[in-house]
Amino acid sequence: MEKLKKYISLKDEDQFYHQGAVELLVFNFLLILTILTIWLFKNHQFRFLHETGGAMLYGLVMGLIIRYVTKAPDVESGTVYECEKLNSGPPTLLINITNQVYEYQYKREISHHNVNGHQGNAMLQKMTFDPSIFFNILLPPIIFHAGYSLKKRHFFRNLGSILTYAFLGTAISCIVTGLIVYGFVKVMVHIGQLKQWEFHFTDCLFFGSLMSATDPVTVLAIFHNLHVDTDLYTLLFGESVLNDAVAIVLTHSISIYSPKENPNAFDAAAFFQSVGNFLGIFAGSFAMGSSYAVVTALISFMHLTKFTKLCEFPMLETGLFFLLSWSAFLSAEAAGLTGIVAVLFCGVTQAHYTYNNLSPDSKMRTKQLFEFMNFLAENVIFCYMGLALFTFQNHIFNPLFIFGAFVAVFVARACNIYPLSFLLNLGRKQKIPGNFQHMMMFSGLRGAIAFALAIRDTESQPKQMMFTTALLIVFFTVWVLGGGTTPMLTWLQIRVGMDPDEVLKAEALSQSASNLDKNTTKAESAWLFRIWYSFDHKYLKPILTHAGPPLTTTLPAWCNPVARLLTSPSAYGDQPKGEDTDYIINNDELTESHESFAHIPVPAQDSTGSTQATGKEDIHEGDLGLGEYKLQLQHAAGQPQMNSL
Amino acid sequence: MEKLKKYISLKDEDQFYHQGAVELLVFNFLLILTILTIWLFKNHQFRFLHETGGAMLYGLVMGLIIRYVTKAPDVESGTVYECEKLNSGPPTLLINITNQVYEYQYKREISHHNVNGHQGNAMLQKMTFDPSIFFNILLPPIIFHAGYSLKKRHFFRNLGSILTYAFLGTAISCIVTGLIVYGFVKVMVHIGQLKQWEFHFTDCLFFGSLMSATDPVTVLAIFHNLHVDTDLYTLLFGESVLNDAVAIVLTHSISIYSPKENPNAFDAAAFFQSVGNFLGIFAGSFAMGSSYAVVTALISFMHLTKFTKLCEFPMLETGLFFLLSWSAFLSAEAAGLTGIVAVLFCGVTQAHYTYNNLSPDSKMRTKQLFEFMNFLAENVIFCYMGLALFTFQNHIFNPLFIFGAFVAVFVARACNIYPLSFLLNLGRKQKIPGNFQHMMMFSGLRGAIAFALAIRDTESQPKQMMFTTALLIVFFTVWVLGGGTTPMLTWLQIRVGMDPDEVLKAEALSQSASNLDKNTTKAESAWLFRIWYSFDHKYLKPILTHAGPPLTTTLPAWCNPVARLLTSPSAYGDQPKGEDTDYIINNDELTESHESFAHIPVPAQDSTGSTQATGKEDIHEGDLGLGEYKLQLQHAAGQPQMNSL
Repeated sequence: MEKLKKYISLKDEDQFYHQGAVELLVFNFLLILTILTIWLFKNHQFRFLHETGGAMLYGLVMGLIIRYVTKAPDVESGTVYECEKLNSGPPTLLINITNQVYEYQYKREISHHNVNGHQGNAMLQKMTFDPSIFFNILLPPIIFHAGYSLKKRHFFRNLGSILTYAFLGTAISCIVTGLIVYGFVKVMVHIGQLKQWEFHFTDCLFFGSLMSATDPVTVLAIFHNLHVDTDLYTLLFGESVLNDAVAIVLTHSISIYSPKENPNAFDAAAFFQSVGNFLGIFAGSFAMGSSYAVVTALISFMHLTKFTKLCEFPMLETGLFFLLSWSAFLSAEAAGLTGIVAVLFCGVTQAHYTYNNLSPDSKMRTKQLFEFMNFLAENVIFCYMGLALFTFQNHIFNPLFIFGAFVAVFVARACNIYPLSFLLNLGRKQKIPGNFQHMMMFSGLRGAIAFALAIRDTESQPKQMMFTTALLIVFFTVWVLGGGTTPMLTWLQIRVGMDPDEVLKAEALSQSASNLDKNTTKAESAWLFRIWYSFDHKYLKPILTHAGPPLTTTLPAWCNPVARLLTSPSAYGDQPKGEDTDYIINNDELTESHESFAHIPVPAQDSTGSTQATGKEDIHEGDLGLGEYKLQLQHAAGQPQMNSL
Repeated sequence: MEKLKKYISLKDEDQFYHQGAVELLVFNFLLILTILTIWLFKNHQFRFLHETGGAMLYGLVMGLIIRYVTKAPDVESGTVYECEKLNSGPPTLLINITNQVYEYQYKREISHHNVNGHQGNAMLQKMTFDPSIFFNILLPPIIFHAGYSLKKRHFFRNLGSILTYAFLGTAISCIVTGLIVYGFVKVMVHIGQLKQWEFHFTDCLFFGSLMSATDPVTVLAIFHNLHVDTDLYTLLFGESVLNDAVAIVLTHSISIYSPKENPNAFDAAAFFQSVGNFLGIFAGSFAMGSSYAVVTALISFMHLTKFTKLCEFPMLETGLFFLLSWSAFLSAEAAGLTGIVAVLFCGVTQAHYTYNNLSPDSKMRTKQLFEFMNFLAENVIFCYMGLALFTFQNHIFNPLFIFGAFVAVFVARACNIYPLSFLLNLGRKQKIPGNFQHMMMFSGLRGAIAFALAIRDTESQPKQMMFTTALLIVFFTVWVLGGGTTPMLTWLQIRVGMDPDEVLKAEALSQSASNLDKNTTKAESAWLFRIWYSFDHKYLKPILTHAGPPLTTTLPAWCNPVARLLTSPSAYGDQPKGEDTDYIINNDELTESHESFAHIPVPAQDSTGSTQATGKEDIHEGDLGLGEYKLQLQHAAGQPQMNSL
């Protein structure tokens, strides 16, 4: 009898394994479908629905099927059991049921009013996966990839503007959204749709902060395909990447803002604590991420010295790179900081220093690996967003709140872009023109981060209302604004068809042709950039990479012994070409990584072939001479006889 | 008040996230340490501890630290609560604790005697991760990689022997181990260490089957580094790969063998049901895996036709390849079959057909991706095995049982290798010499699969005893036998220093030089190989790849319309070189994938450089002419003037 029971329990266990397999299979199926669709779109030049929109659509249909086709609800799972002996929820619970002990693992806390939502069928419950999976597994590769493929030259050139949009803009967006939503909440309380105590001003700000995270994926993919003006591209890319980090830390700070007495009244102490929290977490995460990248850079830097030859083992190098970058995320999380911010700056630093130390094979491997992980994670998230509309069980659709939120999001975006652009234009030599501003206003898509922040806490009714609304805003912006990007570009008469890499290469060539000195970065660069550039060039690059001048020439004379120790032997040789090569190679990075998104014009085979070839040459040859540049340009342009150079 | 509680619960939740981060960080740290160690070993030509042994050692030390340094046990987690209202364990449990509802997720069933094991500290519990993670996440990439990098020509040449060792050998090993262990169990019952009803003969067979899974990782890495005789390599590799599949299905079949009455008596009906199960599951999984691979091959095959250009998007191609292969695993699991077996045959079929259809870029990407995943998964498993010795809480060390198991495992290996080799030598033209047999006997390492099968069920006391014993056998074999491989090879005077790829290329060249016909595979090949080869060459290759003769020539005349439809336009052109190229490219695969394991001789830089270059050329050029072969050979041999060819 005991034997028999054991076998049955083994079978039960098998059942559980298989269930996990079924869910993963659903996602695999959706992803395969998405890939096949992307492929079809690419072949038919279809531009009105982007792949992320497609993934979301498939998720939606699958959610519909799971909701209405799979088996009937399980009665037992909706029942609440009493347990008087406990006074808090332990991480694991051992329960004796008919003389058999079962182990249960803590999942989460549930409000009483949500209990009936848990009576849904098991499949639905299984498909609603843990929000922590978003934060720990799916988001890091996306954010790291964004940091790793940051277009550095253009980024630093627009650093001031990007930082303004990212920090000040996000704060403005958060506050404006919060205020408008609070107004609507007041109205809802007035007409009796809500009770006053349910929805505080801090909740509105929380909603504002999570809705301030704009998504770079969709718009930038289209921009890249169409080769939109590089400055616009960089502004939007830089803003949306940094703004994610800001929004995440902001949301965290607001959620832990807990005034002692009345939650509606303003509590100065708690407020400054939140501001301090924000700054502390941001700075800490930044430091954590950068320091991991510096460690990686130093390890990979050693590969030229006599006793270590890591570069001979590209897989070890790739593995180390991958693990240390992921550790940056995990360490930040473990230390109570924000992993996403850490991994973003880790990616930026890795691209700036470590990348230059890697062997050619590892350069390609890391790039392809992160590109692949980014691709998968992105599409999983968009599929899941589609799924969530039907599989999430506690949606609260409140038309007034939804309307208010839509209004708030667009007004907040306007309050972010236009006034800040006006202020920035006062200081910028190269102004941000009106059509760029309209395009930036239009490109305020909400995506993965907003969704992930909203799903992290869906216990209380206000949070559920926010989640439902956030989901709808994501759907609307991805489908409508994402789909309207191409017509909008035409309508605003924004230059398309510029290849940013070629622009850069042409610039680099003309720079190389003229005299090469630090003044080449003159006209276009901001003062912030110049300070940073000089410090980086003189001290950091020589210590962490093989590029840049020897430290012996940049440090004061009394530091010479230390300087000689730290400088790589190769630094004495390749000084003149070191700095430009670095920028150009890092720019090629983006070509490679976005290559698969590239829209291939009709006579496709040739041009793609040569682009790929160029990409590969760039990677294989770490430091190219000028002659090779010309070759590359010819390749990229697809004109073997481009003698105008 | 309610507000406050909500914030506390949010903080609790954060605590949980961070805990997950800490565990992952521990693994990351161990892996980073392992990578740095491997790198050190490679630089110092240290051959007595293989990287897997190192990973296990680090895991062991970390387990020790976690066990004795982390915080004191949590009292609450060891208490068992009564619940009279339930009569089975639901997947999710809602519990009302002090007016707050908590959701708990079903984890597993626990025997009463194990409850005190759960009083350990939370960190230990967290580090002991779910066995299903092994089966669903970590094993598939390893097994797929094994299948994908199977050395096909040598494999098919020795197909009969490999199948004999894998099927018959595993069955012998299982039964012999079971019988010997059963003898020891009888003795233990006699001297009062065990109660009769606790340990049945089926449990002994279960132990026998899980201990029959030999591990290819450690020995083969050493073999590859030393370039051991190709036939020995292939026999061992083929045996250990297939034998894993057999052992997994066998274990499953034995575990569901449930005689109706007395579990000790032989029940013919139940026995035949188990045999039927074994055959059904094996065949089903094989079919599932192969058919997914065929689907992938067909999709990638279409890339040459006019309307589809998947090969222009290497990331999509790689993604599709990855997802479809994983789906093979998941579908098999979802259908109640064995995913591991499915993914193994999926890998073999992918390598045989799909690989040839991929674009050069995708060939490299898939190879590097699977290689990387294999590397990570392998080292995680070995780290975890080390950890498990201290973190697993219900070890039962029974010296007599452990001694018995050690004896049983070695006797069973001997009963597997020597008699079967004798029988095989009766039929083989190229005999398996005595020293090969001794080496195969010595190479019976137990690793990941044995461990994963043992940890899958550790509820009852016999199962815990088995798990502890299996773990010790893994430690012993990996450290002692693994470490002794190099001395043993010397002692047995087995040829080392043969580069299998060069042997093959030389063979291929001499074949190409003489007349190229199907008779080239004559002397060495088994009849099984010839039948399969002919069918594959005539029908499957032309349908699924661009190699092989056009179907119009191999099919009867009345099939011509269909044949013309199915044959790729390029098949008419490259027939003569198609077949050999295929084998050679697939052999190069292994060089690439094991490249990082390769022991670099002292004047390392040059020889590695050229090996890598060769590998890359192979990948880039799908179908190489003969002239290119010569070039490759020169590269590989590092002799630019090898005119003897």
